[in-house]
Order: sequence, then structure tokens, then C-alpha cells
Amino acid sequence: MTASNRNESVSTGAQDFAAVFSMLKPHMAALDVFMRAQLDAFEPEIRGMADYCIDTSGKRIRPALVFTSGWTGGRVTTDLVRIASVVELVHLASLVHDDIMDEADVRRNRPTATREYGATAAVLLGDALFSHALNLATRFPTTEVCQAVSDSMRKVCAGEIIQTLRRGSTNISRADYERIIDLKTAELFRVSCYLGSRYGGYPMAFVEAASSFGRHLGIAYQVYDDLADFFGDEKRIGKTLGTDLVSGKLTLPLLTLMDRLPASAQVELVEEITGKRPPQPALRLAQMNELGVFPVVTEAVQQELRLAEAALAPHLALPPAPLLMRLCEVLRQQVGALRERPQT
Amino acid sequence: MTASNRNESVSTGAQDFAAVFSMLKPHMAALDVFMRAQLDAFEPEIRGMADYCIDTSGKRIRPALVFTSGWTGGRVTTDLVRIASVVELVHLASLVHDDIMDEADVRRNRPTATREYGATAAVLLGDALFSHALNLATRFPTTEVCQAVSDSMRKVCAGEIIQTLRRGSTNISRADYERIIDLKTAELFRVSCYLGSRYGGYPMAFVEAASSFGRHLGIAYQVYDDLADFFGDEKRIGKTLGTDLVSGKLTLPLLTLMDRLPASAQVELVEEITGKRPPQPALRLAQMNELGVFPVVTEAVQQELRLAEAALAPHLALPPAPLLMRLCEVLRQQVGALRERPQT
Repeated sequence: MTASNRNESVSTGAQDFAAVFSMLKPHMAALDVFMRAQLDAFEPEIRGMADYCIDTSGKRIRPALVFTSGWTGGRVTTDLVRIASVVELVHLASLVHDDIMDEADVRRNRPTATREYGATAAVLLGDALFSHALNLATRFPTTEVCQAVSDSMRKVCAGEIIQTLRRGSTNISRADYERIIDLKTAELFRVSCYLGSRYGGYPMAFVEAASSFGRHLGIAYQVYDDLADFFGDEKRIGKTLGTDLVSGKLTLPLLTLMDRLPASAQVELVEEITGKRPPQPALRLAQMNELGVFPVVTEAVQQELRLAEAALAPHLALPPAPLLMRLCEVLRQQVGALRERPQT
Repeated sequence: MTASNRNESVSTGAQDFAAVFSMLKPHMAALDVFMRAQLDAFEPEIRGMADYCIDTSGKRIRPALVFTSGWTGGRVTTDLVRIASVVELVHLASLVHDDIMDEADVRRNRPTATREYGATAAVLLGDALFSHALNLATRFPTTEVCQAVSDSMRKVCAGEIIQTLRRGSTNISRADYERIIDLKTAELFRVSCYLGSRYGGYPMAFVEAASSFGRHLGIAYQVYDDLADFFGDEKRIGKTLGTDLVSGKLTLPLLTLMDRLPASAQVELVEEITGKRPPQPALRLAQMNELGVFPVVTEAVQQELRLAEAALAPHLALPPAPLLMRLCEVLRQQVGALRERPQT
């Protein structure tokens, strides 16, 4: 369930993002055309597999960040389309690999690449998508894009590895949790804003501010997603609740619950996470409601959103800043929607 | 067994390469220092895992091609060391992923990364190594290295995917086989020679010749390796013979045998490859001896070696050419050593 927790589980989130950014329609259309054209770069035998992954049903959150951070009045530039394609391909490749590891059968309402082509082919298909992303990144006059993206890729993988190695362990601090999501989620959000603003032609002071914004938004998004794993509406989110508990992942809601449970009750939760006792998501959700876990985690999201906004505050005169600010509002609304239906 | 067939199974091959190129000792020492230093680039939590993969027990055939193709009298240059490190990291990453798919437990006499850290972490570790290879490739003034390497990486993956999808299938022509090994093995040999000669400062006519040499040497090497899977000395090669038959891979020795068997006997072999009947490697080896498979496959190796040599012929005055030529001789000796002990 690693994958589903990487900004992919909450399908409504992206729809809301998309609604806010209906102004990005021509950009997204250009992105789709561009990404489809990339299929020609793959060997004929694997083109169909690549096509299967580069589908259009994705939410394109990272491309939206690229286009928004580089916004100069609506013009669709080749540079930004190419950068958006690079970050999306890296994201799609990482999903292909996540699905293998999670033995996931379905994503976006159809079989995963693993299910369709087998795990062996899926490992290699992910690699081929990664390679092509980096190859696209070299089509700039300097090595800057390739350098930034390959660095982010390594960080995303490191974050996932650390999380994987700690599954089923209860020896995780809040600082550990923050480091994991910073690497596995926030890094690609950050680099999307970094490259978007840079190739939108903005001064370095703004590029740095946008990068910081992207990072904090990414952290906020992942914490929200982890909260939704317990407090979300199953139908709306399209997945079973409490999957993190089932897969032994100590996310912030569980960390906070652990903290607030009396010592005697902690033992049982530890046993659930370490797989020594069947997990009881419904009980844990009830306890979270009882012990005030929700407001603590919500506050963590708000805190990151405030940091994201603060980073942009000195630059509100630049076109991308107010647009990026609106993303914070969207996420606030989504968190608010969760609060409206606690599942007690 | 995909992995073991990718130039890694025949341990003597590399020792011979190394013996011939004892002149490369300072280059290889510099490469080891450089690769160790790369560990700092990885997040502390995964450094140990990366270190486990960047061990010094590898044969470094691709780095040897880089250093030889760029040979200008023995000077160790930063550019060539960095390029050698990039191609070796790509190779090591692909081995990590191959071992996952083959469920291999042992490589180079110790547990594989999959065995040591689990398949999940190994998928991501391979990704992290790939990312870092590409990141190193960006440390050149232009995007050329990154572009060449990412392109090769995609081709290597494509070759492996095609081979994987065709495992257990008998609908493979000799042309299909050649295409697979051209992609999965020869491409990285080719790019090693391409970048080596290019950053050795040689003119484009030689760079193209060296690339062509590398490609043909890579094909020859893989055909030799596939031959050794049946005709090699088990002790010397350190693996069970006939693994390609067991894993349903139609390599040139098997393709040739199929061709020469009477139609009635082909059915049984087809059933062995498609997994409908237990494979009988000893019987197949006896038949290969009887039906003259060995000289046919040997001739395929020789043919590629002649093409490799022909590519270099107009450039014998340049320092790398005679050194590269010697690699062809080494491979000829190895093929000759196989012929000496047919296992009937």
C-alpha cells in the first residue's frame, strides 16, 4: 500500500486540483500529446507496455506544479511541457515499481502493469520509463534538469527504502516519519516547483521560494493522505481504510495514537503493527476519535501549509505565487471534508 | 538466470581480460576509489546497501572497455574514471534487478541484495543506483554522456523485457535472438567504447569504429556465454550447466539444436522449453555434440569477432586499436578452451 499512499489514493484530491486549475487545460493537453509522442522512443516490442503506463487517467499533480510554478500568463512552452513530462514519467515509473512490491492488482480501476505483464517485466518496464525520463531531461542546453531530476529520483527511492525496511517496526520517531515523507513525496513536489519556476524564467529568489513551497506542500499532502487512510470516506477514496495499519506502516495518525494510549494498551497496538496480532482498524479509528488524534494530525497539515504560504509571501507580485497559494486552500478544504465524517 | 547470462557467469573470462590489461591497474584502482567516494551521495540509511552492491569483486569489463578505448598512453583522467563509474553503476543496478527476477540467492559467492535486504528494498536500491549513475553522468560540461547512457539503459531494459516475455516460448527466430543480445548485452559494451574513445579525445571516425567494435565484441561475448552454458566446465564456470534450457530461454545453441533435430524429436525439446516436460540438459548436450551444434555457434562468435576487428582495421595507428584487438584474441582463446572439453 506504499503506492496508494503516495498521493494516489485520494482520487478526489486531484479532481479538485484540476478544477482549480482549469486554466491549465491547454498545458495538460500539450503534455498528453507530448507524452504520447514519447512512445516512439521505446523499442516496438515494449511500446504497448509503456503506453499502458503513460495513460491519461493519472492526476498529473506534479505537472500541474510545474506549469503553475512557471506560469507567465498562460503560454504553453516546450520547456515546461518537457519538464512536466519528465517528472510525471519518474512518478509513473515509481508507481510501476511500487505496485510490484505491494503486489497490487488494481490501480485506477484496471490491472497494474505487474498484474498485466508479470513482476519481472514490470521491474524492467519501470527501469525503461526511468531511463526515458532522464533521456528527456538531457534535451536542455545544460545538464541542470538531468542533475536535479536524477538527484530527486535517488531521494524518492531512499525514502521508500527506509519506509520499507521499517515496515512492521515500532521503533520510529516522528522525526523518522517526517524524514521518510520528505524524501518519498515532498522531494518530487519540490523539484517540480524548482524546475517549473526556473524554466518559467523567474529570478533565483523566487525559484528558491517556490522550491520551499513545493516541499512543504508535499509534506502536507502526504500527512493528509495518511490521515485519510483512517478518516476518509471509503467510497470517495476508493480503497479500504486502515491499510497502513494492515501493512505495518507507522504513519502520523498511528504514531499519535501510540503516544496517547496508556502503556498497557500500547502493547496490543505494537503487536498489530509488528504482525503478531491481527490488525483492528475499526478499533484503532474509534480510539483515534476518542483520544483526539484527528486535530493533532490536522494541525500538522496546517503547519506545513502555513510554511508553504510563508515561503511565497514575499513574492505575491509574481504571477505564479497567488496560483500556488490556491493549492493550499484546496488542501485545506480536503482536510475539512475529512473532519465532516468521522467514522465512529 | 538472466543475470548469470549477462557476462557474469564465466568468471575466468574476466580474469583473462584483467590479465591482458594489467596495464589498467592504476585506472582500476582510481575507479575503486572513485566508486567508494560515491557512497557519500546516498542517504545514510541506504549507504550500507549501496556499498554492498558497489563491491570490488566485480570484473569491471565495461570500465576496462572505457579505459582501453580512451587509451592515450596510460594517463588516468577524471573524465574516463567518471564514465567508467557510470557504466559500471548502470551494470550493477541492472544486476540487482536481474537477481530479483531470477530469485537468485548467490552472486560472486555471497548473498544477492535481494536475499540480503528483500526484493522490495532491492527494486528500490537498483533504482537508487541507476539514479546516481545518471547523476554522475551530468557532471560533464554537456548533456552528451547522460543522453548516451540513459538511451543505453532503456535499450538494455528493452532487451531484457523482450527476453523475459519470450521465456518458455519456442516461437523465436535467430534474428529475434540476435536482437535480444544486441540490446541486453552489446549496447552497454558499445556505449563504453563510444564514450571512452570520445573522452579520450579521438576523432569521430575512430569513435564510430570503436562503437562498432564494442557492439560486435558484446554480441560475441554473449554468444560465447550462451555456448559456455552447455559446453563450459562446471567447476571453472561455477554454475550448473544447461540453466538456459531449465529457465526456458532459447539461446543460439538450443536454436541450432532445434533446427537439426528430426521433426519427431523437436516436439520433446519444445515441451522441455515450454515447461511441459522436465528439461534434460545432459541429453541435449549429447545431441548437440552429435549434431555438430558446437562449430555452428563457435562460428557465430568468430563472425562477430571478425566484424569487431574489421571495424578497427583502418585505425591501427591509434593507440587504443591494438589494445582492443587483443580483447578479441582473449575471447578466441576462451572459446578454444571450451572446445577442449566437450562434456559427452
